[in-house]
Amino acid sequence: MSEYRAPLDEMNFVIEQLHDLPGLAAAIDNEDASGELLNAVLTESDKLANQVWSPLNWSGDQQGVQLTETGVKAADGFADAYRQYAEGGWTSLYFDPQYGGQGLPFTFSMPVAEMAQAANMSLGLCPLLTTGAIEALSAHASAQLKDIYLEKMISGTWTGTMNLTEPHAGTDLALLKSTATPAGEHYLIKGQKIFITWGDHDMTDNIVHLVLARLPDAPQGVKGISLFLVPKFLVNEDGSLGQRNDAYAINVEHKMGIHASPTCVMSYGDNGGAIGYLVGQPHQGLLAMFTMMNNARLMVGLQGVALADRAYQHALEYAQERVQCVAPGGTESGAIIHHPDVRRMLMTMRSLTEAARAICYLTAKQIDLSHDSATAEQCAMARKRVGLLTPIAKGWSTEVAQEITSHGVQIHGGMGFVEETGAAQYQRDARILPIYEGTTGIQALDLVGRKTLSDAGAAMAGLIDEMRADMSQHGQALTSAQLALLQEGIDALEQAYQKLLAESGDDPMLPGAISYDMLMLAGYVCGGWQMMRAAALVVSNENQHFVANKQATTAYYIEHILPRFKGHFGSIQAGSASVMAIPADML
Amino acid sequence: MSEYRAPLDEMNFVIEQLHDLPGLAAAIDNEDASGELLNAVLTESDKLANQVWSPLNWSGDQQGVQLTETGVKAADGFADAYRQYAEGGWTSLYFDPQYGGQGLPFTFSMPVAEMAQAANMSLGLCPLLTTGAIEALSAHASAQLKDIYLEKMISGTWTGTMNLTEPHAGTDLALLKSTATPAGEHYLIKGQKIFITWGDHDMTDNIVHLVLARLPDAPQGVKGISLFLVPKFLVNEDGSLGQRNDAYAINVEHKMGIHASPTCVMSYGDNGGAIGYLVGQPHQGLLAMFTMMNNARLMVGLQGVALADRAYQHALEYAQERVQCVAPGGTESGAIIHHPDVRRMLMTMRSLTEAARAICYLTAKQIDLSHDSATAEQCAMARKRVGLLTPIAKGWSTEVAQEITSHGVQIHGGMGFVEETGAAQYQRDARILPIYEGTTGIQALDLVGRKTLSDAGAAMAGLIDEMRADMSQHGQALTSAQLALLQEGIDALEQAYQKLLAESGDDPMLPGAISYDMLMLAGYVCGGWQMMRAAALVVSNENQHFVANKQATTAYYIEHILPRFKGHFGSIQAGSASVMAIPADML
Repeated sequence: MSEYRAPLDEMNFVIEQLHDLPGLAAAIDNEDASGELLNAVLTESDKLANQVWSPLNWSGDQQGVQLTETGVKAADGFADAYRQYAEGGWTSLYFDPQYGGQGLPFTFSMPVAEMAQAANMSLGLCPLLTTGAIEALSAHASAQLKDIYLEKMISGTWTGTMNLTEPHAGTDLALLKSTATPAGEHYLIKGQKIFITWGDHDMTDNIVHLVLARLPDAPQGVKGISLFLVPKFLVNEDGSLGQRNDAYAINVEHKMGIHASPTCVMSYGDNGGAIGYLVGQPHQGLLAMFTMMNNARLMVGLQGVALADRAYQHALEYAQERVQCVAPGGTESGAIIHHPDVRRMLMTMRSLTEAARAICYLTAKQIDLSHDSATAEQCAMARKRVGLLTPIAKGWSTEVAQEITSHGVQIHGGMGFVEETGAAQYQRDARILPIYEGTTGIQALDLVGRKTLSDAGAAMAGLIDEMRADMSQHGQALTSAQLALLQEGIDALEQAYQKLLAESGDDPMLPGAISYDMLMLAGYVCGGWQMMRAAALVVSNENQHFVANKQATTAYYIEHILPRFKGHFGSIQAGSASVMAIPADML
Repeated sequence: MSEYRAPLDEMNFVIEQLHDLPGLAAAIDNEDASGELLNAVLTESDKLANQVWSPLNWSGDQQGVQLTETGVKAADGFADAYRQYAEGGWTSLYFDPQYGGQGLPFTFSMPVAEMAQAANMSLGLCPLLTTGAIEALSAHASAQLKDIYLEKMISGTWTGTMNLTEPHAGTDLALLKSTATPAGEHYLIKGQKIFITWGDHDMTDNIVHLVLARLPDAPQGVKGISLFLVPKFLVNEDGSLGQRNDAYAINVEHKMGIHASPTCVMSYGDNGGAIGYLVGQPHQGLLAMFTMMNNARLMVGLQGVALADRAYQHALEYAQERVQCVAPGGTESGAIIHHPDVRRMLMTMRSLTEAARAICYLTAKQIDLSHDSATAEQCAMARKRVGLLTPIAKGWSTEVAQEITSHGVQIHGGMGFVEETGAAQYQRDARILPIYEGTTGIQALDLVGRKTLSDAGAAMAGLIDEMRADMSQHGQALTSAQLALLQEGIDALEQAYQKLLAESGDDPMLPGAISYDMLMLAGYVCGGWQMMRAAALVVSNENQHFVANKQATTAYYIEHILPRFKGHFGSIQAGSASVMAIPADML
């Protein structure tokens, strides 16, 4: 099985130069956020990913998880690998120092999380979900709940879960049925939840479940959903663990990928009711859920980047070693990397991965700015940008991760289809990414609906303005033909969202019919924008190989990947008519 | 698990109307080839696929195959399902009546094979490989070998395999090392072969291996490869089975998909040498191999169509039943099929499947014309068209099958990632299609090299001429905007191959660098051409629902799928420079 090595130069470049770390540090007034510290963080994180997490990736896939009489058993080695991660402080990087966090910018957590997900996505899901739970509690829980739970979760001593989905209520949370009945100072939770990632395990001695349920007097629909904290073990006043709560994993799913991540069916209240504590206000669970969800969506986009990079490293190594056929200009059979079609696949993987990373890290930077800028107005502006970028970062990065991990298999030829090679696992693992935390369709609807139609295109116009300003400032990094193509892409994005604004009133099917193509169009164009900026800003980098590679990768992206926007734009121009032409019962 | 039902109306339409069955029957002078007979064949074939093969698809995936001390055991029920297939005469449809075949056009075997592959691709691979072996023996073996083996293989009593690949020699057969030593009237074969589909099993009492190996005096490279017939059990003069030959499966691969199809490591001659018989002339094995391969490539393209259709049926059923969220124009949560983005995915699946089917069946028709047209000139013309269409049918159909089966998972949401749903199996099974029988990269190189550069574009020019003639004749089936788009696609294909011809001399990297985009461009444009013809020719169909659906599906294809050609054309225009810009050792 091939090693995973984090692309440290690239990660440093994206944060320091492409996304202007000094500017960010100044804007959020965080003098710790230096390039030196970043570099130290990345170097240490790479060691753990490379030496501890990555070697368990394939064995975890093969072994999977096991539901026993005493609960879910994680794959061999996982508990120790998780412990090292928590002890190294990797769970607490950007959280509030009041609860033991390190107070670093959120942006610093991106490369660390990317490494964890690339090294071992099944294991990486456990802290990823905990992070979402921490954010929801930080934003909405009472001081009392925070005091009891936050420090243990931030230190990684306990893990967290998100319990939204029920068998009949996936995307449509309005349909959910789980109940919460008041019982003194707490509530009794009853109901079944599915698709609960790391819903049970033996890696820590407690698990903090956040569960959506309805109070007795709840209004129907999503406005009657409340959020509850339901610990696996109750916590005594002195912080020690008390009785086992009535919350059990009753099944684990047999899945296409992420075999070592237990996807649990959770049953609450089979024995009278699980004790839970209200988080935030009654019936305001959806708000708290979105707090968890927004962060989680970006992190899933980042998982796409992570698997893409891992698949690239694996395929590159194979392409450099596998001898097969005479390449053009050669005289004898050579490594397949010398074949232009193999190089095309590698460059496609590489350039899409770099573009997606730039977009995800940019979204993280905007999150930092939305929390810690000097003025409320600056925070609000950044929040708007975060809202617009999040569905693109999640939707587009995970869609291109499908293609990238598939190329990884393809470069291996027949060996790619054989599980022992390891390339297939990345593709199987990646397949969940466009589904969980809101499918690509949901991201696309979010982009065209809440993020474009709802503000009459203001956020989109702002993004396009910034792109055009960057074209003026950095366009010299491209040839004139490349520049014209990128300009055409930006114009297409503008025309597309203006069509959406102009025609959605008369055609209610239009937003849904063109939403996916809007998302992909926006992704490819944003990727081109960021790659252009990268090609311009990289020139001050001291590593001349890095400079040359970045410029070549940008050229490849603009010339060979960006033209895809035309297909999406063409589909958008056609509108909804032929999408809906065959009646539902005639298909 | 959802049922599979063959799309009988569509299959009948494609062969009878779209590809003009009466015209074909007249051209090959086969008066049996009537629409009535076709319809009867399809109806019976559907029953077996639906009732016998399809129910074993998922159980076979879960159980897989087992290598025991006595050889490979097929999954439960497979031996009986195979026996019913053979006894029903489905293995012999188009073969020579002299050896028990039914003498029907090859075209008739396409829908039958599609049904078998859709119902159960793992099992369907067994007769698929046998067919290739029959073709190689029919074309190249001595009368004596034919008399002993062909009837048993055509009747399905024995199955056949193709043994090309060795661990170090996949695409590059020049590197193969297996040897054949003369020993009286036969040869002793020694060597190891990998990726041997159905290399061993317990469904029939003999297996006929076709094995590529080198004679002692063989020249180096591909010009020193000979083909041998190596039976699992030797055959006595009276046709009864004799001693066990020295040919054994020593391992079966653990794969991403087609779990119930044993992919064997075969070892020949571990105990002194496997007895083999020369097929064709010494050192001419590659020629015989291509005979097997060309048919097999088309059949793999057809497997793409088959899995695509099955995935569509599965997803459609789920979309009609799954209630989730309020669709535009609705007032309460409804079936997800009413959501435009779900409809987009279904229409994408449907229209790509229909386009790929039209291309694969057209290739089959040209194969019939290449064998049985009245004049040698007509046969040669058809052979040229077969040569051009085969890499498109194989490469494009299997590439779009990746997308289609992935949409099938996506429509199921989280349930799609859970194996019990069955949608994931189609995607996992489909993943082998762009790899085996020549990867997409090899198909693409074949298209730009042997099929375009080698004849200075004559075959491609002929295809484009025919498309333009059809535009004149049938263009009224499209709107003027649709017509303009298809015209633009055809022009792009013309410009692309002319660029290839003009610039490949100066740029040896160009053919490989643009080959994949050429293949995909050709596929999308051919799909548009065939869908346009379908929309025009369908009007004489009596089923008005079928007419309306075909026209709507064509409109969707032209408006929402065809624009993708622009992305591929853009990439072609950029040439090879940025593909190869980063040196191989600097990636």
